[in-house]
Amino acid sequence: MPSVTREEIERLDDKDPLGSARDLFHLPEGLIYLDGNSLGPPPKAAFAEIEKAMHTEWAEDLITSWNKAGWFMLTDTLGAKVAGIVGADDDELVVCDSTSVNIYKSLQAALSLRPDRKTIVTEAGSFPTDLYMVDGLRNFAPDIDVRLEGVDAPNLEDLIDDTTAVVLANQVNYRSGELRDVGALTARAHDAGALIVWDLCHSAGVMPVDLNQHGADFAVGCTYKYLNGGPGAPAFVFAARRHHEKLRQPLSGWWGHRQPFAFDVAYEADPGVRKFLCGTQPILSMRALKAGLDVFEQFEISAIRQKSMALTDLFIALVEEHCTEYGLELASPSDATLRGSQVAFRHAEGYAIMQALIERKLIGDFRMPDILRFGFAPLYIRYIDVWNAVEIMRDVLASSAWREERFAVRAAVT
Amino acid sequence: MPSVTREEIERLDDKDPLGSARDLFHLPEGLIYLDGNSLGPPPKAAFAEIEKAMHTEWAEDLITSWNKAGWFMLTDTLGAKVAGIVGADDDELVVCDSTSVNIYKSLQAALSLRPDRKTIVTEAGSFPTDLYMVDGLRNFAPDIDVRLEGVDAPNLEDLIDDTTAVVLANQVNYRSGELRDVGALTARAHDAGALIVWDLCHSAGVMPVDLNQHGADFAVGCTYKYLNGGPGAPAFVFAARRHHEKLRQPLSGWWGHRQPFAFDVAYEADPGVRKFLCGTQPILSMRALKAGLDVFEQFEISAIRQKSMALTDLFIALVEEHCTEYGLELASPSDATLRGSQVAFRHAEGYAIMQALIERKLIGDFRMPDILRFGFAPLYIRYIDVWNAVEIMRDVLASSAWREERFAVRAAVT
Repeated sequence: MPSVTREEIERLDDKDPLGSARDLFHLPEGLIYLDGNSLGPPPKAAFAEIEKAMHTEWAEDLITSWNKAGWFMLTDTLGAKVAGIVGADDDELVVCDSTSVNIYKSLQAALSLRPDRKTIVTEAGSFPTDLYMVDGLRNFAPDIDVRLEGVDAPNLEDLIDDTTAVVLANQVNYRSGELRDVGALTARAHDAGALIVWDLCHSAGVMPVDLNQHGADFAVGCTYKYLNGGPGAPAFVFAARRHHEKLRQPLSGWWGHRQPFAFDVAYEADPGVRKFLCGTQPILSMRALKAGLDVFEQFEISAIRQKSMALTDLFIALVEEHCTEYGLELASPSDATLRGSQVAFRHAEGYAIMQALIERKLIGDFRMPDILRFGFAPLYIRYIDVWNAVEIMRDVLASSAWREERFAVRAAVT
Repeated sequence: MPSVTREEIERLDDKDPLGSARDLFHLPEGLIYLDGNSLGPPPKAAFAEIEKAMHTEWAEDLITSWNKAGWFMLTDTLGAKVAGIVGADDDELVVCDSTSVNIYKSLQAALSLRPDRKTIVTEAGSFPTDLYMVDGLRNFAPDIDVRLEGVDAPNLEDLIDDTTAVVLANQVNYRSGELRDVGALTARAHDAGALIVWDLCHSAGVMPVDLNQHGADFAVGCTYKYLNGGPGAPAFVFAARRHHEKLRQPLSGWWGHRQPFAFDVAYEADPGVRKFLCGTQPILSMRALKAGLDVFEQFEISAIRQKSMALTDLFIALVEEHCTEYGLELASPSDATLRGSQVAFRHAEGYAIMQALIERKLIGDFRMPDILRFGFAPLYIRYIDVWNAVEIMRDVLASSAWREERFAVRAAVT
């Protein structure tokens, strides 16, 4: 006997306090989109923002839009919107550049504040760009030492000591969805006299982050996943106000100057978080992002987290009830409080299975070597989508449709 | 008696081989836009590209567009288009990040190829971000020495010696429009065993650059001026193929990995110019840029240069004929072969005058402390626009309209 019925699921949607949010997004007909943790769909308002940005601001007002349309300050005005979502103050966060570039700035800023310490502590299981940026930094600063969770010790906490300048940690692991305790790890870093950079790529917009409540030093994250800013929308960087005055970072372009339009020969950093800015930002992408961020002004992040936990709990329960006989193994924490808004299952033939699911219009993604990853964005994913997704999974797995040869051929880029 | 008549000017437009290009752009009614060297207007085709990018690629195809719409390779496909414009091979140039960030990568790459040399030579008169990026680099690498044209010697050439690792030079000065000889300065750097990074912000798209013909090592530039890519469209970076194997740069994000989607723990750089890539790029802005670059496939860059010289020669001649009695002083080279596609005049009250011209729908810009700067983009500026611009200038200067108090108040951001 099933643990839950379709009718019960429908009632969950009927009483969902976030139920009205879905209508704010454009979602393709018939698709179950469990990949918003890779690329969020467009808020409908984004279309109007982009139209206005191209037809009025660029085409008609041209150069005057840097002032008139507020282009030049989008780094700050969008930054203030992100700040509200991640628990920072408006003047502690700017939107600019990519997450990778912002990781570099943040690490260098932290090192500039801890000149007597030379160790960076991070995770071997991180999304790789974090590791690659650490590697690039070290290649040009050979006195820096790097210690990796998963290589040098099983836990980040065990690697932090009085040589640690900075810890770089993901709030949510990109593969497993495992959730770190921001408060506890920040406190552990501070107890050792170290600073911490939080990578919020897989958490911003889907759970409370409370950066200031936890005393975080720096944070970075992308805006094209749960913040629905559009493909490759610029990233963000947060620095706690107490660090603004003293920190330095090497990517000191003209946008970070105290007076960018004075065109001084000498660089003088903005006294605040704008010292993280470097060069000119891609305005059309920034204008689309505005619509993504505006959506969050209508909903409580705590309500989003509640629904996120309920969606992922339901998904795990239904998969375990209907699909585990086909060899799926949960690769995410089973306790929702320890989990982000994604669920990963392992299967040796994960790649082929995901291709077969995608053909059935259930979109998740595959991560090497064997992870089927499903993201649940509570603003537009309904409980009934979870039910329908598991029905498709069961069909595909039961029929062995995924064993067809065409699903085994990998695209060059996945 | 005037040296040229309005009828003669109209005949120049009638026989202009680039005359058809103007219709490819959207230009506001009644405006004379001599600021395309700051922000190019939209090619009409950009609207369709952006519509397709948002409504089809993002909204309907979502994550699949990274492959299906070629998003992931826009760095390279757009790069190849820019390469054709600046005289590079397709696989020597990528579009990514901002000019400032690319200056940093290029300087570090050059330093990585000259490990025994510690001096960077550049210009005090550069667009400031170049200087600021050098400053940021040096702050984190204190053994680097910087020598400035205009401070340490009157000419760049005199500063280059066997301690020089890299020269950073603008092909066209952003204020005066002064043009450097790319071949001669590159040869001078190479003779001393140094490398050179060319900043092409004010030359790409408006004159032949011939990077490979001149043996240039690295180049960077923006795409939102004469390439008409849209506000803040991503920049480009060029590296000569002979340097690809050995160079390193510290912003080694996942897009520059040999296999970005293998998600390896260890960074292994792409063997080619893609090793300059870092993080995820702003796709909507990239898609608009495509339309800007496509325009250049229809026109010869040598024809663009010919018209550029003719337009600026005409502008100078007409201003000198009609306006110099009002105190305007040419601040650009009078010889077109030594000048970019812009003309600068000094006037102590330049700011107020420019505001008054803008009110009359003649758009140029002001650069501190006293420069009125006018840019001539030959793809959409006609000879008659030059004539009309000078008529407006004469009217404004003769009437002293610019002395009204409202023109003297500066906006916070100009």
